[in-house]
Parts: sequence; C-alpha cells; structure tokens
Amino acid sequence: MTTTAVPLLADSVRLREEADGGGVDILDRRVYPHQVRWVHCATVVDVAAAIRDMVTQSSGPAFAASAGLVVAARAASGQSADAAADALRAAGALLAATRPTNNHIRDVVATVLAVLEQPAGTAGGPQLVAAVTASAAAVDAGYRESSAALGRYTAQLIPDGARVLTHCWADQFLIGAVTAAQQHGKNLEFVCTETRPYLQGARLTASTLVEMGYTPTLITDGMIATVFASGAADVLLTAADRVTLDGHVVNKVGTLGAALAASRYGVPYYAMVDHPDPQAPTIDDVHIEERDGDEVLLFAGQRIAADGVVGRYPAFDATPPELVSKIVTDRGAFEPAEVGSYFG
Amino acid sequence: MTTTAVPLLADSVRLREEADGGGVDILDRRVYPHQVRWVHCATVVDVAAAIRDMVTQSSGPAFAASAGLVVAARAASGQSADAAADALRAAGALLAATRPTNNHIRDVVATVLAVLEQPAGTAGGPQLVAAVTASAAAVDAGYRESSAALGRYTAQLIPDGARVLTHCWADQFLIGAVTAAQQHGKNLEFVCTETRPYLQGARLTASTLVEMGYTPTLITDGMIATVFASGAADVLLTAADRVTLDGHVVNKVGTLGAALAASRYGVPYYAMVDHPDPQAPTIDDVHIEERDGDEVLLFAGQRIAADGVVGRYPAFDATPPELVSKIVTDRGAFEPAEVGSYFG
Repeated sequence: MTTTAVPLLADSVRLREEADGGGVDILDRRVYPHQVRWVHCATVVDVAAAIRDMVTQSSGPAFAASAGLVVAARAASGQSADAAADALRAAGALLAATRPTNNHIRDVVATVLAVLEQPAGTAGGPQLVAAVTASAAAVDAGYRESSAALGRYTAQLIPDGARVLTHCWADQFLIGAVTAAQQHGKNLEFVCTETRPYLQGARLTASTLVEMGYTPTLITDGMIATVFASGAADVLLTAADRVTLDGHVVNKVGTLGAALAASRYGVPYYAMVDHPDPQAPTIDDVHIEERDGDEVLLFAGQRIAADGVVGRYPAFDATPPELVSKIVTDRGAFEPAEVGSYFG
Repeated sequence: MTTTAVPLLADSVRLREEADGGGVDILDRRVYPHQVRWVHCATVVDVAAAIRDMVTQSSGPAFAASAGLVVAARAASGQSADAAADALRAAGALLAATRPTNNHIRDVVATVLAVLEQPAGTAGGPQLVAAVTASAAAVDAGYRESSAALGRYTAQLIPDGARVLTHCWADQFLIGAVTAAQQHGKNLEFVCTETRPYLQGARLTASTLVEMGYTPTLITDGMIATVFASGAADVLLTAADRVTLDGHVVNKVGTLGAALAASRYGVPYYAMVDHPDPQAPTIDDVHIEERDGDEVLLFAGQRIAADGVVGRYPAFDATPPELVSKIVTDRGAFEPAEVGSYFG
C-alpha cells in the first residue's frame, strides 16, 4: 500500500481557537501556488466576502461556511438567546448568498443551524457556541468522509495505467479518488486543463497532483477535444458543483464541451459529487452564476483585450445526463438518469 | 453602402524600399494591441526567425514570405545568376520550414520562385530582383483578392442580425467577410474566444473588430459549448490553416471542440480558406505542428503552473468534414466532402 502525501489544499480553511485570536484563516487560492498567503477573517462578514471574492472555491466554501458560523456564534455569545439565534440566521443567509450555483454552502448552513431548533440553540451564550462548534466540526468531518467514500468508488472505475483528463479543480473529491487509487496500487497519469479565467487547473489541480507525486501535463481549455481525438487520455473526470435529480451535471464552465468531446471519442466521463441535490429535480431549478465579465478580460491581473471589448463569464455549465457515463456519489456510482434513486 | 475602417492588421507586413533602408517591417502580433511594435528584418534569416517565433502568424507569414524573398533577391543581386538562384532557393526552403501546418508559406515560395524558370530568373542581378519583386507583389495582391472573394461568399451565408462566434484570428479572411457584410448593410455581432496560449482572439480578433466598429464579446475557450447551448451565438466562423481534398479542416487547436459543440446545438460552422490544398488528399497528408509545451506554462513571460508540471501544445487540430457546414473558398462555398471539386 502506497502512502500518499497530503497536499496543502486538503486543509486550506483553518478555524482558530479564541485563545489563538479567533476567526478563520483561509488559504488564498487566487495566488496559490505562486504565493502561500492566508487571508484572516475576523468576522462572518469577512468570511462571506472571502467566498464571494474567490479567496476560496470548490470545496473551500463549505469549510469556510461552517467556520464562519462558529465565528458568528462566538460574536453573539454575549447577546440574549433570541438575539444570538437571529444573528446566526442572518450570518447563514449572508453565507448562502455568496455563490448561487454550488449548493454546499446552503446545505452546510442548514445543517449547522439545525442546532437552533435544539435545546442548546435556545440557551444562547457559551452553550450555543459549543453546539455550533460541534455541529460545524461534524459537518466538516462528514464532508471529508463523503469525499473519501466517493473517491473510493471513483477509483474502482479507473483502470490501472489510465491517463485521466480533469477539468478545473475537483478538490476533496479528486484528492479522495487519487488517494484511493494509490492505496490500490494503481498507476495513473494526469492531463489538467488550465481552466481560464482563474486557472484553477494550472494552479490548484496541477500543483496538488505534483504534491501527490505525479508529473501532470497541462493543456489549454481548447485542447480537450484534440487530446481525446488523438487517444492521449482515457478518462474524463470532474467534480460537480451540483447534480440534479434527473442527472444533469452542473460544473465549472468548460465541462460541457469536455463531455461532448469525450462522448464523441468514446471516452467515459465520470462526475463526482457527494450527493445529488434533492432541491433540484431538474436543471431549471439551478441558478447558473454569471460572474462579472471583466474577469475574462484579465489574465493574472493584466488586461488582455483592447478597449471596447466586453467580457462574459458564465461560471458554470450544465451537462445533460446522456453525456455522462457515471455520477459517482458517496453511496456509489449511478447511471445519470438514475441518480435520483440516491435518496430511494 | 457602409464604408468600413481599415484595421491595422490588414497591412501588417511592410516591405521597405531599398532607398528607405530596405528589409521588411513586421508588426509584432505577440504584443499587439498593447504595444504597436514593428520588428525590422534586414535579412531573410531575420524574416524566417520572425515567422518561427510568432512575430506574425495567420495570414502574416504569407506576406512575410514574399517580402523575405524580395529581401533575399536584393542581397543576391551582386552574385552570379546561378549563385543568386541558389541563394533564392535556399531562402525559400528556409521560409517554408518555419511552420509546417499552414501551406501558404510553401505556396508563396513556390509561386514567387517560379521566376527562376523564366528568362529573368536566369539573368541574375537587378533583373532578377525586379522579377522577384513583381512576382511577390502579384502574390500579395492575389492573396488579398482571394480573401475579398471568399469574404463575399462567406457574407452571403451569414444572415442579417447574426451573432457570430469566431475562434482564434481569421485575419484577411475575416476582414474580407466583415467588409462584405458591412457593404451589404448586414448588422452582425461577434463573440471571440480568447484563444490560449497566444490569446490571438483576445488581442487580434477582438481589437480588429473594435477597429471595424463592433463591440465584441470575449469568452474563454472553455465557454464555447455553453454559448451555443444557450443560443447566444448563431454561427461558428473560423479560418482554416489547411483544408484537405476530402474536407478536413485544419485550424488552430480548439476548432474541433467548437465544431463539435456547434454540431450538437444545430449551429452552422463555416470554415474559410482560399482553396483546399491539392497536395493534401487526406488528413494523413498534413503534419500537425507540436510547439514547445512550455508555451502553455507561460503567460506574458510569467509561469502559471507549479514546478513539476509539463506543458503540451498541439498547435492545430483537424475537424472532420461531417462537422463542417460549408467550406468557403475564393470560388464559392462547398459542401466539405465536395471541396476537392474546387480544382475540377
């Protein structure tokens, strides 16, 4: 059994004890790996701003949201029980509004704030802080366990020697899958798309794979089809920010084009998600975030286009179930059209 | 009839008279539009290096090759007729070897050097210089006429009000098509892909369209499929670096993925080329240039990926005829499978 190195991005949101100054430190993914910079968030408003401004993304916001609620609970510990509960609900709403497409933040907030319906939640003060802290820790642990489980199911699908093309940054899910593949002694190779405009693939995926012992190949987002056409990759593997009950995969823009190319050239496409979203029966129930188009006009902070050019940035796209081979969840791999049976 | 502004890239390779210092000035497309910098090439070796190093690309190398031969003829004007002819043939071979996929350089060299089989070519001296200069000018004019003609045929295919998505930089062909559309009073909108790693779309296409009076929308290369899926563009339009007689379109990497997406969502794809390549009956006759993978790892000289990551840069891809709606040539639009009849 191979022991795998733990990459930095596996633990990139760190709640500080109050004795250590409190707040939460979030690794700034906008500059990693060129700089290892931590953004300190003293309040839940800081945490929400960090999520909105892409200091962290992918799995990061789920951990940031739970930490943000702990920070909010601590801040409200001197208030009356009712005022503290109101403050926590407001904090949850603030966090859930930061990114509309990925449902992890919304779910983390709902799970942690369920304590408000329990005795501890109506007590306020230190008891509420303790309850929120425990709930947040349980949510974090659950997310990690879920990622490890879906990673194991994913690794079963990927043959030894496979060349895996991955788009954007699948975070805990990818770390889970790679760790499981290593534990089973599978040799893999990786092709990463750079994933403009934020270059998550070039920066986060590629560097994490280096930390885990690989020599990944970096391509531009436009090269996916020719890589599959030429037989230079055998598997398409991505995370999903959201999966609908009818099997649509919502993920970083570019995934749809990658899935079209994979389908055309007979390459299986596996999408990893902890579970489908019970609140999204169909793709019409998912709001696709349209970010500021100016973000496309910039590359590493430099403007790349002439004055008079406007940018457009649909941050995600939706891949229909017929283009997806399997949706891999923490309860196993599903045919996309059957993924609603996760809850069955 | 609308008068169109002439963009700078319509005239970006300029042969200097000998009285004006000689040589050729080539607009540096690697930094345009951020800088308007001209690279002065005093010798044909300088010209070949400029083509190889991407100072100019797309239609530019055709004009640079003809100018390079004039510069070579001038340099050989003091030699014997035989030595001058040998020097010109060596210059032609040097130019043709710079970029292997686009056949324009090879064809320009062959056409201009045909003078060596004529009386002027065996005379050497000023008579040879005059003959090469005249032949080069005729080739340049022919390329411009051809671009204007295929532009008119292309404009006929594009309906008034269309939103045209274009990948990379179609240069004289795009300028020809847009000019013709403007002359027919057609209103068009444009979506440009940025086209990593060189950003030709962000820099060359988008700025030229601004110069021609439009407000183009810039997207990343990964957004093409979602733009077509959402109905935000009606036509896919690109140049072709080479078209085989059996209708394969060889163009900047990313074109294949764009064509797959267009086909999936019922968007017509028109590929513009002056003529198919009679020396390429099938796609197996085309050498796809693989450039230095380090070019993918860099943006504006700055490395974007961690140490330990390797880059890969297949510069072109091949789109099969069934994914192309029409191949538009200077003799009209062809069904892709029928494009070999261009010469019939």
